Amino acid sequence: MPTMTNGSPLDVPRGLAGVVVTDTALGDVRGREGFYHYRQYSAIELAQTRSFEDVWYLMFHGELPGPAGRADFAARTAAMRRLPPEVRGALPAIARAGAVSGPLAGLRTALSLLGASAGFRPVYDIDGERRRSDALAACAAVPTVLTALYRLGQGLEPVEPRDDLPYAANYLYMLTGSEADAARVRAVEQYLISTVDHGFNASTFTGRVVASTGADIAACLVAAVGALSGPLHGGAPSRALDTLDAIGTPDRIDSWIRERVLAGERIMGFGHPVYRTEDPRSRMLRGIAQDFGSPLVDFAVEVERRVEAILAELKPGRELHTNVEFYAGVVMELCGLPREMFTPTFCAARVVGWSANILEQAEDSKIIRPAARYIGPTPPQPVPAP
Amino acid sequence: MPTMTNGSPLDVPRGLAGVVVTDTALGDVRGREGFYHYRQYSAIELAQTRSFEDVWYLMFHGELPGPAGRADFAARTAAMRRLPPEVRGALPAIARAGAVSGPLAGLRTALSLLGASAGFRPVYDIDGERRRSDALAACAAVPTVLTALYRLGQGLEPVEPRDDLPYAANYLYMLTGSEADAARVRAVEQYLISTVDHGFNASTFTGRVVASTGADIAACLVAAVGALSGPLHGGAPSRALDTLDAIGTPDRIDSWIRERVLAGERIMGFGHPVYRTEDPRSRMLRGIAQDFGSPLVDFAVEVERRVEAILAELKPGRELHTNVEFYAGVVMELCGLPREMFTPTFCAARVVGWSANILEQAEDSKIIRPAARYIGPTPPQPVPAP
Repeated sequence: MPTMTNGSPLDVPRGLAGVVVTDTALGDVRGREGFYHYRQYSAIELAQTRSFEDVWYLMFHGELPGPAGRADFAARTAAMRRLPPEVRGALPAIARAGAVSGPLAGLRTALSLLGASAGFRPVYDIDGERRRSDALAACAAVPTVLTALYRLGQGLEPVEPRDDLPYAANYLYMLTGSEADAARVRAVEQYLISTVDHGFNASTFTGRVVASTGADIAACLVAAVGALSGPLHGGAPSRALDTLDAIGTPDRIDSWIRERVLAGERIMGFGHPVYRTEDPRSRMLRGIAQDFGSPLVDFAVEVERRVEAILAELKPGRELHTNVEFYAGVVMELCGLPREMFTPTFCAARVVGWSANILEQAEDSKIIRPAARYIGPTPPQPVPAP
Repeated sequence: MPTMTNGSPLDVPRGLAGVVVTDTALGDVRGREGFYHYRQYSAIELAQTRSFEDVWYLMFHGELPGPAGRADFAARTAAMRRLPPEVRGALPAIARAGAVSGPLAGLRTALSLLGASAGFRPVYDIDGERRRSDALAACAAVPTVLTALYRLGQGLEPVEPRDDLPYAANYLYMLTGSEADAARVRAVEQYLISTVDHGFNASTFTGRVVASTGADIAACLVAAVGALSGPLHGGAPSRALDTLDAIGTPDRIDSWIRERVLAGERIMGFGHPVYRTEDPRSRMLRGIAQDFGSPLVDFAVEVERRVEAILAELKPGRELHTNVEFYAGVVMELCGLPREMFTPTFCAARVVGWSANILEQAEDSKIIRPAARYIGPTPPQPVPAP
């Protein structure tokens, strides 16, 4: 059991679970209530009534924009979508290298190069306005990078960003080369808004640890992307959709699920470490999916109904419900996003939350540096002659 | 004051200072004794008697190599020095982009690309042998990347690595294109060995946080490089040498130092957050510098003597001594390393310590994910209509 090194033992749970490392004004998750918020607003309500740009502004500035601020912010961030020529020129090589490690490894490399190209400076050497400007440039570039890497991987030319389209519409446009219909744009936008932030997850914490050393915004974001790429992180909506595919038809649901649960396997798309009720993102995304209507949605709803019943029977008291991955995958599939772009799309939203956290951390001046306890053989053994 | 979120308040110091987040068998720093060790051996004794490769092997395998293991390890790591063509081809663009953000930003990009090129996979999806192999490939490539980026920045062609030279000798060879004399090679090697690891610093912690998500070795190392690039991290030996330059001549020492100390400024190269005695690395490096002998060394020793006396007078009881940066800068200057390569050279050693920590963390299966406490306005405020 971990202890304090200053003498008095202190029970700190493994992985620092529940240990408060910082204060934040960015938001919180209330697992028991099935509620999460950005600043002082319900995240779901924001997703239902606001644009992605409004929420981005809220996270960076602490308040929702007025009409003038909104227009200004939209124009400023749209102008930052185009990549510096050095980054644009390196994308084919990055795409070629990423065949195995995947799109997040490509984003990691491109963001690192972008930060250097754009001359990002250590956050502790620049003022808040300059930090925000670096973070805006990084966030605005992420959809351009991700869609270009995807298209290059498919043997297609990247589509240049358009600055007359809002964030979500431009994202889908760069992906396919044509404008998506309004319903799909809005569905993706609502997903993106609901994904901007979600408490103190491992990638957010990673970004803040790097920020606490005073490193530049790219160093912080690249570290966060790396943490997101870990299998334990979560945030991979394609896995839940893979489950739907594997089940295949409604008559196979019961046997497929029972077999896995009895074998002790986790059912992807169900269960969450924080929520003890329905995941509020899941509820919203199910509604969006049902507005589209399709055999896939009907099947997903049926799987959800049956799995919850089986889990309640086999694991009573565990309160296992669908998590964000389940209907996020369904919504993205309905909106025509290729499955390998599900996690990158998550990333195109979360980069705003990471950045807001990094900017908040940069206001602090205390490095985050815990301790380790040596448990190896007692030193010093004399070093034997080679 | 941070607290536990599970109800019972728990005083955890800011920045998690002193909070034990993990057990380790890699080593420790005993600040009060002025002693640090790798595994069960004194790090300084290892630096005095062993090769860099021996210590690298020790960190990765938990024991010093025998003759066969040594030859095998040297051959295997030497063969990994050559970069994949994609990474080699991208270096000119990375070097051009790095003019402002510096060599660590370039290393960050190149390591990220290398991991993807080499098909690194999430540490939780591969066994220990494959993890070690990925880590070896990353460590072996770092000197090649750093020296190539430096030379490209100088308008010179990179020098291809030689696999017939040991690590330190090959590093100096790639930097200059000619073999360094044995005394300089050994001095740099001893510096590198003494720098492989040093307790649970912020970059090491960062690498372990990313590893705890199960991400690939490149994701972990890139995050650690990012943390090292932060101004609060430490590890910048050039700053101490800049101080010697600024003082200029022995007659100016007293006035220069007194002025700064009385103005509340820190004197670079003095003071350490852990050591309450002389830094053992400083003692070793002073000895190495004195063996070379030069007016610079005499001046450095005189500055050390005078600064310690002035600090003891003006800040009694603070025990401020030279830290590793002070004589590391002097030794690297004597060995002909350009000043902008001081921190990269540090990195060429520390990447082995980071990797050993990442490999150790990957054996655990618990994600490192602390909590934050929301301190903003009470939610939910209803979202106003836009």
